[in-house]
Amino acid sequence: MPGPMTGLIPAPHTPFHADGSLNLDAIALQAELFRECGLDTVFAGGTTGEWSSMTLDERRAVAERWREVGGDTLKVVLHVGANCQADAVALAAHAREIGVAAVSAVAPGYFKPTRIVDLVDFWEPIAAAAAPLPFYIYDFPGMTGVSLPMSQVIREARPRIPNLVGLKFTNSDFVEIQQCIRLDDGAYGVLLGFDECYLVGLALGMTGSVGNTYNYASPIFRRIDAAFAKGDFEAARREQRIAVDMVKVLQEFGFQAASKAVMGMLGVDCGPVRPPVRNLTRAETLSLWEKLSPLDAFPRPLRKPE
Amino acid sequence: MPGPMTGLIPAPHTPFHADGSLNLDAIALQAELFRECGLDTVFAGGTTGEWSSMTLDERRAVAERWREVGGDTLKVVLHVGANCQADAVALAAHAREIGVAAVSAVAPGYFKPTRIVDLVDFWEPIAAAAAPLPFYIYDFPGMTGVSLPMSQVIREARPRIPNLVGLKFTNSDFVEIQQCIRLDDGAYGVLLGFDECYLVGLALGMTGSVGNTYNYASPIFRRIDAAFAKGDFEAARREQRIAVDMVKVLQEFGFQAASKAVMGMLGVDCGPVRPPVRNLTRAETLSLWEKLSPLDAFPRPLRKPE
Amino acid sequence: MPGPMTGLIPAPHTPFHADGSLNLDAIALQAELFRECGLDTVFAGGTTGEWSSMTLDERRAVAERWREVGGDTLKVVLHVGANCQADAVALAAHAREIGVAAVSAVAPGYFKPTRIVDLVDFWEPIAAAAAPLPFYIYDFPGMTGVSLPMSQVIREARPRIPNLVGLKFTNSDFVEIQQCIRLDDGAYGVLLGFDECYLVGLALGMTGSVGNTYNYASPIFRRIDAAFAKGDFEAARREQRIAVDMVKVLQEFGFQAASKAVMGMLGVDCGPVRPPVRNLTRAETLSLWEKLSPLDAFPRPLRKPE
Amino acid sequence: MPGPMTGLIPAPHTPFHADGSLNLDAIALQAELFRECGLDTVFAGGTTGEWSSMTLDERRAVAERWREVGGDTLKVVLHVGANCQADAVALAAHAREIGVAAVSAVAPGYFKPTRIVDLVDFWEPIAAAAAPLPFYIYDFPGMTGVSLPMSQVIREARPRIPNLVGLKFTNSDFVEIQQCIRLDDGAYGVLLGFDECYLVGLALGMTGSVGNTYNYASPIFRRIDAAFAKGDFEAARREQRIAVDMVKVLQEFGFQAASKAVMGMLGVDCGPVRPPVRNLTRAETLSLWEKLSPLDAFPRPLRKPE
Repeated sequence: MPGPMTGLIPAPHTPFHADGSLNLDAIALQAELFRECGLDTVFAGGTTGEWSSMTLDERRAVAERWREVGGDTLKVVLHVGANCQADAVALAAHAREIGVAAVSAVAPGYFKPTRIVDLVDFWEPIAAAAAPLPFYIYDFPGMTGVSLPMSQVIREARPRIPNLVGLKFTNSDFVEIQQCIRLDDGAYGVLLGFDECYLVGLALGMTGSVGNTYNYASPIFRRIDAAFAKGDFEAARREQRIAVDMVKVLQEFGFQAASKAVMGMLGVDCGPVRPPVRNLTRAETLSLWEKLSPLDAFPRPLRKPE
Repeated sequence: MPGPMTGLIPAPHTPFHADGSLNLDAIALQAELFRECGLDTVFAGGTTGEWSSMTLDERRAVAERWREVGGDTLKVVLHVGANCQADAVALAAHAREIGVAAVSAVAPGYFKPTRIVDLVDFWEPIAAAAAPLPFYIYDFPGMTGVSLPMSQVIREARPRIPNLVGLKFTNSDFVEIQQCIRLDDGAYGVLLGFDECYLVGLALGMTGSVGNTYNYASPIFRRIDAAFAKGDFEAARREQRIAVDMVKVLQEFGFQAASKAVMGMLGVDCGPVRPPVRNLTRAETLSLWEKLSPLDAFPRPLRKPE
Repeated sequence: MPGPMTGLIPAPHTPFHADGSLNLDAIALQAELFRECGLDTVFAGGTTGEWSSMTLDERRAVAERWREVGGDTLKVVLHVGANCQADAVALAAHAREIGVAAVSAVAPGYFKPTRIVDLVDFWEPIAAAAAPLPFYIYDFPGMTGVSLPMSQVIREARPRIPNLVGLKFTNSDFVEIQQCIRLDDGAYGVLLGFDECYLVGLALGMTGSVGNTYNYASPIFRRIDAAFAKGDFEAARREQRIAVDMVKVLQEFGFQAASKAVMGMLGVDCGPVRPPVRNLTRAETLSLWEKLSPLDAFPRPLRKPE
Repeated sequence: MPGPMTGLIPAPHTPFHADGSLNLDAIALQAELFRECGLDTVFAGGTTGEWSSMTLDERRAVAERWREVGGDTLKVVLHVGANCQADAVALAAHAREIGVAAVSAVAPGYFKPTRIVDLVDFWEPIAAAAAPLPFYIYDFPGMTGVSLPMSQVIREARPRIPNLVGLKFTNSDFVEIQQCIRLDDGAYGVLLGFDECYLVGLALGMTGSVGNTYNYASPIFRRIDAAFAKGDFEAARREQRIAVDMVKVLQEFGFQAASKAVMGMLGVDCGPVRPPVRNLTRAETLSLWEKLSPLDAFPRPLRKPE
């Protein structure tokens, strides 16, 4: 059973007030936007959610609010990873208590496992603390510096993590993703986290996709889905290029902060990013708006920043 | 005009005698196999062709023989790159004289350009020496250590290299390949050189594909083409996985040498690879045969090595 | 004023019980060994101290115990860094309250600053929370993936972090360390963290050295100091080679875990390392002992593990 | 016997005319400058000599001219490496014929050996073709991408390359250099190629140093030698910093081209660098002069460029 994550899944930003403190109220606004876009699952507390810049109490508070706001109509998958295994175990247990749909954990990135068994040793008690909730591996070598072949990691983890159902694969290795997708005849959910290559994921048979841009630009990907379903690759590529263009613009300003700024332009003010990520200046935000607003990407018109 | 390279294009090995000297006679056998497989173009003198391990005289001799053997029915695209620009210019002029279909050159890999303009400065006289033959950029950052965004390189090269028609993209950056494919509404030929991701290239709209494994395993890719044309992605992925399996086996033994050994199993003895690449031992060759022969990949049965 | 860290400074392991829980009692044994070796400062809660594998409460408990055990005769410099700025600020404030000699913080390693100003923005409130305690930058690109030129970072930080007194430089860039040492005529303390190159640090004028191996192998480095002071480079190199040999052996078994095992052989049982770092097996520990015990490196005979 | 290379050894630029063609006449001017500086050995045809941008005929012509100009008073060590083993063998045989003092070869950088034995296999016939001339390994991972532990490479090569006498170590791994220096009680000459860390090499016991900046800035290094001999580390570091400052300026403009421009300022016009390396503009050359001329580094006043 490849787990509860399928299709298009936004990884929501954690909303902060202008002073950097947690703004739990904005979560309802995020959920409203997602429902409006027909999205039914969120991957909360991940990289876009700035998990590594939050205290444990804040992470728990965000999880609880997502759970409340999600109710019965928005599944919440929660990232509980941490460099400190005990912290991750505590978050996993809390996730189980509040009853999310599934949990996920990133590899530890300070002491970086170089052996597959050590990585599974790290995850095993975290997954156990969340059981019987489904557990997803979260592979993001670009952030953690841990680069191990995930199909082999799953093989090692299989007998030791019974609630393992899949992985979020934020990785550009399109050979390895094929190896993960085919494992045990598709027994594991494989969620690509590389929005500019969504079409590649469809071609290779991904289970779904978790991404930052699905927060605010899901219409592009809906159109890619539709074109792909009809076998209209010209149209699919044309749409995919809009995503590429959008991401290139965001990267120019700092992807993480710029994507958070876009939320504000959609009427969902998620506030600033936390250090060490840099926020856009007012002038940069305006320039970002000028470059993005011509794109046919967003579910609502982008409001010009004040 | 996106140039003469389309579809499936093998990058032939350079055949050597057992003592390492050039074995020009085997080129006819290679051509025979390619024709048997319905292949109509070769990319000679590239990485699989061990260009960097050959003298200039040897490279010219190989080019001439391919031209003869190719005749009117097998187009020859010739790699003429070198770290020494004057060497590459000399090879390009020779290629023009013998009348190949197109030439291509890799980036210099000892002094590595870090600015786009410097890379174009390097290629400009090489392409000019080959004119009016079409010129293809050969991007292979894994070998050269030169990693520049090729869509921007093409933009810079456009006005200065009038015979530029496309690029061989041996690179795993599937965002950048999208940028190359869309340039000037598809004006440039984009040939992916990543056989394990052939299906990805099809989905993204590549012009064709140049690869090592097309020497001996083209049937897999013909079947991917057919499945893709019918929109049967299950079948396409199944075939793509055979290619992945095959490449994993080859890599286990050293990709370059193992692929050359496979040619021998098909009755086209291309001899050893040259140093610093290591040849398989007799036992390894046998083990390679045992692992590969069950795969439905090859146009002829694999002969058991003696 | 280059701060309180000079000379040879061990970075102590955090002692755990066999079940992985904190073993605060062993800290007195560590301090006893250090005093026996004539060491007067410790750098606690750093990489060797497995900071990233500990909860905040554990980090505070360790700090307090070191402060108690250190008393007036063993200066405690405390690492308070964390990926979450608020966590680091809280630890810095706690460090000030318990009155350590200085604090230090590593760069955040999940979101990796690529601009100098962003890194200083991250550290500024942490250093402020510790003020008036002296603050040391902790540069360890091999762990954090943050690789910025520290002499320029110090220039940026100078006016914004008034309590900045130096840096712990766990980095192999021996050009950059020269730039740090010369800054403002030696105004900043520069502590090399590269034990196998201790002699290099002496030659270049480091203020001192913070290291893992000074926990258990300080006699080697005392002899290097003595040889260097006499200008006897033959002797200094001979001693340095013992350190290299020792580190090569430790690396063979996993540096972090093996070095902790050595503590046990000296009668200071610090227990296992935490995941994701792997502990030595019993057989490996014996093999480690066999390889290390011939070396003239340790202040006490190495006890054979049971 | 650690070979003929000891002390300070410049790696001369290959002089070209303004049109890029070889300017053999300037070699006498280079030699004159070196003699004036008391230098008695050159390492010709290496990286500074732009070997990879030259044809084989040009490399032979340069070698012959250096041999003539060097006569009995300037030892010529010749780099004969190439990606093509046969080319390197031919150059090695030519070097033997013209009677240079020693030869050296870099690792092949297109096909990059990852096993020590493969690298030694590559070098063995090259060294044999030069025998009985002494042979030096030339390790430059920053250019070749081949990063193998040289002390182990020497161990493997020892029985197979009887004329092996040492290595040119252009590598920042100061642990590995210690391992090379100590091999067989100092049996191998170890020449550091990292001018900004010359003092480090002295402290660790290098046999000598081969570098680009010794072409034009040997006075700095003579002063470091003198200070080191007296045990005056303050003075040695002060001088070393001049070298660091100089190299930082050169790097700002492109190290290879800027260093060639400095030769012209010393009255030894070596002309432009070849593509893909970029030459300085007139304005940049002037700016380079302005930044370098205040430094107490050069054996002659730097002439202001026209």
